[in-house]
Amino acid sequence: MSATTAGSARCLSEHYAGNDQDLPTLAAGVLSAFEGITVEDFETTSDTFLRTAQHPTLGRTYLECAYAPMVELLRYLDANGFSNYIASGGGRDFMRPISREVYGIPRDRVIGSATTLRYASSDRGGTITHNAEADYLDDGPQKPIRIWSRIGRRPVLAAGNSNGDIPMLEFAAREDQATLRLLVLHDDDEREFAYTGGAEKALAAADSSGWTVISMKNDWATVF
Amino acid sequence: MSATTAGSARCLSEHYAGNDQDLPTLAAGVLSAFEGITVEDFETTSDTFLRTAQHPTLGRTYLECAYAPMVELLRYLDANGFSNYIASGGGRDFMRPISREVYGIPRDRVIGSATTLRYASSDRGGTITHNAEADYLDDGPQKPIRIWSRIGRRPVLAAGNSNGDIPMLEFAAREDQATLRLLVLHDDDEREFAYTGGAEKALAAADSSGWTVISMKNDWATVF
Repeated sequence: MSATTAGSARCLSEHYAGNDQDLPTLAAGVLSAFEGITVEDFETTSDTFLRTAQHPTLGRTYLECAYAPMVELLRYLDANGFSNYIASGGGRDFMRPISREVYGIPRDRVIGSATTLRYASSDRGGTITHNAEADYLDDGPQKPIRIWSRIGRRPVLAAGNSNGDIPMLEFAAREDQATLRLLVLHDDDEREFAYTGGAEKALAAADSSGWTVISMKNDWATVF
Repeated sequence: MSATTAGSARCLSEHYAGNDQDLPTLAAGVLSAFEGITVEDFETTSDTFLRTAQHPTLGRTYLECAYAPMVELLRYLDANGFSNYIASGGGRDFMRPISREVYGIPRDRVIGSATTLRYASSDRGGTITHNAEADYLDDGPQKPIRIWSRIGRRPVLAAGNSNGDIPMLEFAAREDQATLRLLVLHDDDEREFAYTGGAEKALAAADSSGWTVISMKNDWATVF
């Protein structure tokens, strides 16, 4: 019955893996592209994109990029009374349409980055639209803040794969019970990617703090 | 299985009922009083206050101020597959410690006003503390925005009692199914209070939009 935080829906942003300095530029473009779109239309657009666009190098749609061991772990936790959440730097409203189908995580448990929104009255239910302005980027110290804001608990299990996950992994600590912190290492050049860029500090923290490092190459029988 | 939004945990702020212009002043005092307090310590303080402090005129603790018909409705909805939320102008972290006990609503389903938070690393789990700065006041047009941000759905049932609830009630509309909008009228001077100040526009909107107005005096056998 305890809150659990799943790691990033990493595959969604894999094309800029290890290259996070491009994120602000990319984000600004994405933001301006969706200025004034209603939340319902944004959802339809995201859903279509995720179901049809191909990953640039992995040769599959984004929907087929979910890590099989991550999905297995989420199912196992769900079956044992845990509440699973996605806490990703990716866009909250972008991930919501597919989160249940892919990860078994309902839309109200998707924590991600967000634009500010505005509300306009109408006699047909009012309208919420996206502004071309980031509300917050759910990364680094924002991750534990967003987890607290949404859930009001510290995670008992947190999994990440980059330096931006360090605060979330730190925050998964409780005085009254043991917690589990997992760091996924991208070290499988054949089946996915091999890099440590963007995760050097997380690997050092895992070493000094006793977090469990998972090797995609050695520990995962299947990747996708 | 549909999202539902419960009305304000009104009793918590009943002493400035109909006098919302005092709210910013009050809020500023509250904000500065809790600058730098950790989220865990804030919770302990709120919990103690709610369990011990007496309502200034109703002669009972705040915990005993919950409306019995509201709690009955929440239980009925919960037993029939609805997910109930509190969407209140009151403080999210202030209401969380008692929301399950009083309303049967778990802490991750409390939507309320919030201060900004800051995170500091430590080797014992990191610390989140409150800043003396409002992040948002969950009232008026912010209510549908916060409901969307948290849940990602439009409510199928929404209940309110003031002008600040109009946008939330408007937003509880769906093209594909009927929705229910309830407006509670404080018209019972003997058992609670009788006033329409602060709810005039909501009553007019209920009249023109066909929302259901509930008279505390005539429709409620028991208030508390």
